[in-house]
Amino acid sequence: MTSSLLASLRPEATGAPASGIVELSKYARTAGDVIQLWVGEGDVPTPAFICEAATRSLAAGETTYTWQRGIPELRQAIATYASNLYGRALSSERFFVCGSGMQAIQIAMTLAAGPGDEVIIPSPTWPNAPAAAGLRGAVPVLVELTHGNRGWQMDLDRIAAAITPKTKALFVNTPSNPTGWTATREELAAILALARKHGLWIIADEIYTRFVWTGEAKRAPSFHDVREDGDRILWVNTFSKNWAMTGWRMGWVEADPALGDVIENLIQYSTSGSPPFIQRAGVAALERGESFVEHQISKARKARDIISTAIEQTGRCHFSRPDGAFYLFFGVEGMTDSMAGAIKLVDLAKVGLAPGAAFGSGGEGHLRLCYLRSPEQIEIAAERLRQAIRQL
Amino acid sequence: MTSSLLASLRPEATGAPASGIVELSKYARTAGDVIQLWVGEGDVPTPAFICEAATRSLAAGETTYTWQRGIPELRQAIATYASNLYGRALSSERFFVCGSGMQAIQIAMTLAAGPGDEVIIPSPTWPNAPAAAGLRGAVPVLVELTHGNRGWQMDLDRIAAAITPKTKALFVNTPSNPTGWTATREELAAILALARKHGLWIIADEIYTRFVWTGEAKRAPSFHDVREDGDRILWVNTFSKNWAMTGWRMGWVEADPALGDVIENLIQYSTSGSPPFIQRAGVAALERGESFVEHQISKARKARDIISTAIEQTGRCHFSRPDGAFYLFFGVEGMTDSMAGAIKLVDLAKVGLAPGAAFGSGGEGHLRLCYLRSPEQIEIAAERLRQAIRQL
Repeated sequence: MTSSLLASLRPEATGAPASGIVELSKYARTAGDVIQLWVGEGDVPTPAFICEAATRSLAAGETTYTWQRGIPELRQAIATYASNLYGRALSSERFFVCGSGMQAIQIAMTLAAGPGDEVIIPSPTWPNAPAAAGLRGAVPVLVELTHGNRGWQMDLDRIAAAITPKTKALFVNTPSNPTGWTATREELAAILALARKHGLWIIADEIYTRFVWTGEAKRAPSFHDVREDGDRILWVNTFSKNWAMTGWRMGWVEADPALGDVIENLIQYSTSGSPPFIQRAGVAALERGESFVEHQISKARKARDIISTAIEQTGRCHFSRPDGAFYLFFGVEGMTDSMAGAIKLVDLAKVGLAPGAAFGSGGEGHLRLCYLRSPEQIEIAAERLRQAIRQL
Repeated sequence: MTSSLLASLRPEATGAPASGIVELSKYARTAGDVIQLWVGEGDVPTPAFICEAATRSLAAGETTYTWQRGIPELRQAIATYASNLYGRALSSERFFVCGSGMQAIQIAMTLAAGPGDEVIIPSPTWPNAPAAAGLRGAVPVLVELTHGNRGWQMDLDRIAAAITPKTKALFVNTPSNPTGWTATREELAAILALARKHGLWIIADEIYTRFVWTGEAKRAPSFHDVREDGDRILWVNTFSKNWAMTGWRMGWVEADPALGDVIENLIQYSTSGSPPFIQRAGVAALERGESFVEHQISKARKARDIISTAIEQTGRCHFSRPDGAFYLFFGVEGMTDSMAGAIKLVDLAKVGLAPGAAFGSGGEGHLRLCYLRSPEQIEIAAERLRQAIRQL
């Protein structure tokens, strides 16, 4: 009977893969006092001034339906933040509030790709991007990054070679989860040229742009640096990472205002808008959160150095220090089953890492470690891993 | 350039219709002090004890990622509420928390229907249901309710006649928004028999079940009263209506636990779960909200009588007093353009109603009025409408 129920569901639904990260987390949660470095999340709750903005809004009775695109104050606050960050004037009409960066990806995929279409995604990749394409009935085409002495690199020729008449979109995540690969401005210009040539949409996932470790730049290169009006680019973004708001489920889509009515309808027919009191918290984060963001970045920078040194010292791991984001994605000599490896590390070291196999083509043999943590906690994890990885 | 951008989007996305309700609301918001009866929402904010549960959770730092299916406490609270309401033991494993009743519908549609499939929906209907089917690439097939001396009725033969080899699901909203049609237990049994015979999924939208005006029953008849294990039924539900939580964007899907992993993946790849502090508010609503719900129902019952009497007195409207939900859906003699009629009522009476045309086949010529309001406010609206409808 159960199998009959499942068999009667749509293949897009039953075909959606289980997340390998979730699988590891379920194991690790049963193992007692484990340092949880498998998920893309820091170790502090949302700052009080952000929570208090939500509390005040609740107390004021802002608990009813509201603008589907987001309250005007939040759209303006995002526009101001983005205009400052990218050094160009961006109208609030470009920004559409939605229920998480994940939902932003879902909306972007719905706009750009459907049944039979192909979406090119550099890999290793956060698994939710290809899964979102698959749920639209589209085929995610994973194109492996190369991995050499300069770390993870995108081979533009490989991307170009993967384009077929069915290709409708390129999903570009830079800085990249999990690899830390961070596109240069020149690479972004080349990707954009390729997209223009073939009439493809770019779905730009630049959510880690503030977490960049090369030089003194305040952010990573962005498609904002190379775009022109009329380019087919959809940005997806989230409040989760910069402002420690992973649990709030709020993000935004940035697009040409000409798409406004279409995006509003997609929001209407998926979650019908975001809670007004959560949006007030978003305004507080954007307008008063800069010192918190800088503190997060500085913490991650220290943690990156600590964990990179420790993993190098094992003598059994291969990686380059990542250019951006807050993950170390490293290969372990002789480890061919990353899920088994991650489980063994939970048992041996009480440290939980995400198995590389969860990140698609090119990911097996690796482990992903989130270092958006206090340097003290990362020291402890580093020491444990130094011992345990030798026994893998 | 703009037209080129739009032309390059997927037809499912650009084909999603604008909501006629939103269109009217945009007009009415510019018209000054209008009594807003166009939306399915009451006139009180969320009760303080519910808001305070969220506030306490925020203060406790519950601001991070959490269970994709919902926190165990909330799933149990829903199970307890539902078990009491339906008089049968329902396991918490049947319940999946998501980001609104709308998202519950999106998930249910994704499970049951895809490109080329057909979904039968009795009409007039809340427009978001057919729109959600269309976004999956499925074809919503609207089958008109009949409308006679007994009010709106479902003609099961019409439903049966609409079934084709492409039909995959029946969307059944009872009590119905906008018509107030409320299925009897016998009708539900007949619909279920039809679904069983043809191997169709039923998407059961019973969110207004507590708002029922026939007799003394605590709720409307439900598919829970007639279902057996193995039946293909997906319930969609929301916190919005019972507990005045429209702005919170939280709902749930109820399904056979065998579907759990698939539903969890659909949540993961759409919004990745609901905020934990909102879920705590949901627990408070379910465990301590009964007296509030009963107050809402009693208010709506009084308001229904007031507004029904007033609209009858115009001598120009045709309707039967609705059996359930909290809308009056009435035809106006000689009104062939309900959007124009609704706009005229905003101008003449400063009362905003939703145009019937927004509710699909069979809706034109009607207006929808939400009476989940204080009797005092409904008295004022009633008096204004009594005058103005004569001038339509």
